[in-house]
Amino acid sequence: MQLVPSPRIRTTPFHRSVGRAGVTDATVYNKMLLPTSFGDPAAEYDRLINAVSIWDVSAERQVEVRGPDADTCVQYLTARDLSKMKHGQGKYVAMCDHQGRILNDPVLLKLADRYWFSLADSDMLLWVKAIAAERGFDVTVTEPDVSPLALQGPNAESLVGELFGAHIKDLKYFWFIETELTAPNGPDIPLVLCRSGWSKQGGFELFLRDSSRGEELWDILMTAGAPYGIGPGGPNNIERVESGLLSWGGDTTPDSNPFEAGMGRYVDVDISADYIGKAALAEVARTGPARLLVGLMIDTEPGQVEAWPLDERTPVYSTGGDPVGTMSTVVRSPRLDATLAIAQVKTEVVEARLPVEVDAPDGRRTATVRQLPFL
Amino acid sequence: MQLVPSPRIRTTPFHRSVGRAGVTDATVYNKMLLPTSFGDPAAEYDRLINAVSIWDVSAERQVEVRGPDADTCVQYLTARDLSKMKHGQGKYVAMCDHQGRILNDPVLLKLADRYWFSLADSDMLLWVKAIAAERGFDVTVTEPDVSPLALQGPNAESLVGELFGAHIKDLKYFWFIETELTAPNGPDIPLVLCRSGWSKQGGFELFLRDSSRGEELWDILMTAGAPYGIGPGGPNNIERVESGLLSWGGDTTPDSNPFEAGMGRYVDVDISADYIGKAALAEVARTGPARLLVGLMIDTEPGQVEAWPLDERTPVYSTGGDPVGTMSTVVRSPRLDATLAIAQVKTEVVEARLPVEVDAPDGRRTATVRQLPFL
Repeated sequence: MQLVPSPRIRTTPFHRSVGRAGVTDATVYNKMLLPTSFGDPAAEYDRLINAVSIWDVSAERQVEVRGPDADTCVQYLTARDLSKMKHGQGKYVAMCDHQGRILNDPVLLKLADRYWFSLADSDMLLWVKAIAAERGFDVTVTEPDVSPLALQGPNAESLVGELFGAHIKDLKYFWFIETELTAPNGPDIPLVLCRSGWSKQGGFELFLRDSSRGEELWDILMTAGAPYGIGPGGPNNIERVESGLLSWGGDTTPDSNPFEAGMGRYVDVDISADYIGKAALAEVARTGPARLLVGLMIDTEPGQVEAWPLDERTPVYSTGGDPVGTMSTVVRSPRLDATLAIAQVKTEVVEARLPVEVDAPDGRRTATVRQLPFL
Repeated sequence: MQLVPSPRIRTTPFHRSVGRAGVTDATVYNKMLLPTSFGDPAAEYDRLINAVSIWDVSAERQVEVRGPDADTCVQYLTARDLSKMKHGQGKYVAMCDHQGRILNDPVLLKLADRYWFSLADSDMLLWVKAIAAERGFDVTVTEPDVSPLALQGPNAESLVGELFGAHIKDLKYFWFIETELTAPNGPDIPLVLCRSGWSKQGGFELFLRDSSRGEELWDILMTAGAPYGIGPGGPNNIERVESGLLSWGGDTTPDSNPFEAGMGRYVDVDISADYIGKAALAEVARTGPARLLVGLMIDTEPGQVEAWPLDERTPVYSTGGDPVGTMSTVVRSPRLDATLAIAQVKTEVVEARLPVEVDAPDGRRTATVRQLPFL
């Protein structure tokens, strides 16, 4: 289906560059365009695995919290111990509702004088503004002019090192620096450089802090990246399934808690600080989650359909035909030469290592439950 | 651009019917597909103006509030006096933040034992859940299994009367009944029938209360509607501009208040009940809004481009070239044989009845500011 243009769905600072690069496919994420393909999926996968790919992920919007109560407010919004968090550090966190259900799984960045929740696809600005105002926290909550651009792939580190200096090789995962990039035809471009991104191929996200400089930043990276094999891409569904990266709202359902979504190790229920959903999460930690996020390796014979798009969750069955879960995406992995899926499956089925079944376009298939990641 | 399939973007109870009807264009609204065209815009406009059009507007999701404190909670969330609201009544309302900026412009429905906010495109479930929990209101806040399907156009009343009985002709605008529709192959289909819809051509919205019955409901309406000239369509941008209907998030910006968005007559600042944003709105009511939502009639000579898609807001200039506002959509009106736009323009320019200028693809044009609606 064609996506009709509307100012209600926001363009990004890079959208003219993306258009010139030949974008063909997109999704809508946080009411903003998120480009996903430039018409050559095989080349896009290849450069992510073997070179470096540039992604306009502006749609990962930031919710900024600053002010005297920022530490307390941000902890109250987050199901993870932030007491030892340092300036320059990022943490992958679950934001939950009062019943312990995940509302978003952002990367939280602690800047010198503010925090950014770098969001998955839900309007957390509404949630954070409501909580801050009604609790009386002395904070300012905004969506700042910040738009991430990702460089992902094994060559990303060399490219970023060339542009920003070899010291960036010392940045640990999810840590960042507030810096600037020299521009040939203007003042330096302000940005936050973070070792992060929605792939496991290594790389960085450049959080552009001035939306008027998007095309310049894109051009600088494309020029400097040419020797490294750079090319356009977007969040890659095949690689993220291989790597077991969560798609909040796709792999999860509105009633999922972090333990069911594979985020249990990021939930701290024994800290002294209070946060939203803490009591409900402590109860899940005690009793154990009813479902688990797992991989499925779907048995596929030569000649059978190897992958198929899902526009809605489809059932996972026991070998007896009873529903035991739902599957949210199916891909063909070039590296494993196998058909892979991500699913929420009943804990008892996972723990008993039982085989399951799913529906393919050409009939029912057996599948094996696997721990994530596949690779 | 192609919209890639993902369970993160929800399908609707009618999506198989919509697919068979030949949907070609869609948008994403409340993280759900909203079909907008079936490949023949002229026919779609014509049947809305002259016959009856069926629209899958499931994406107008409901936030349901029920429980002992529902009246108080809903009033606290709404910048309009609800004290005289009756069961069976709907009201167009602004939901604002603590600074008086519009977060959503839903139709609020008061059912026997609950309220529904029937939403524009923002995750108000997050806002309402946060406010209710932190204020300690004794309410349950959910997104129920309710999916509106619209019948719009001059023949809608006859069609709905044939299906539900002539008594529906007595329903006033935004009033509704909780009812059922006889189905040939199953139990009655539960729904709420409301005289409403995002056009000014007359019609109803059928709020389906069981998503498993979507295809049946669609088929019943298409069969019964054939003599009335029914056919598929979607929210029609040309008609809604002619009629001056607000597109929240498209025509408004994140800092818009209701007075700037043409919703001033729905804001009650002198009531005794407290609600979010009341003090800020009282101040705007006292000083007057800085901008106004208006129509533009754009001077267009034969041979010039008559309409152009906007994927972002573009400037409105004074005749001296100073920016005085932004324009959010441009259409060609068949009924007025004119090029029309919707814009936010500085109050002083509107009140002085000054001409303005806008950029068309083939150059700058003059335009006249008009009060909405055009028709």
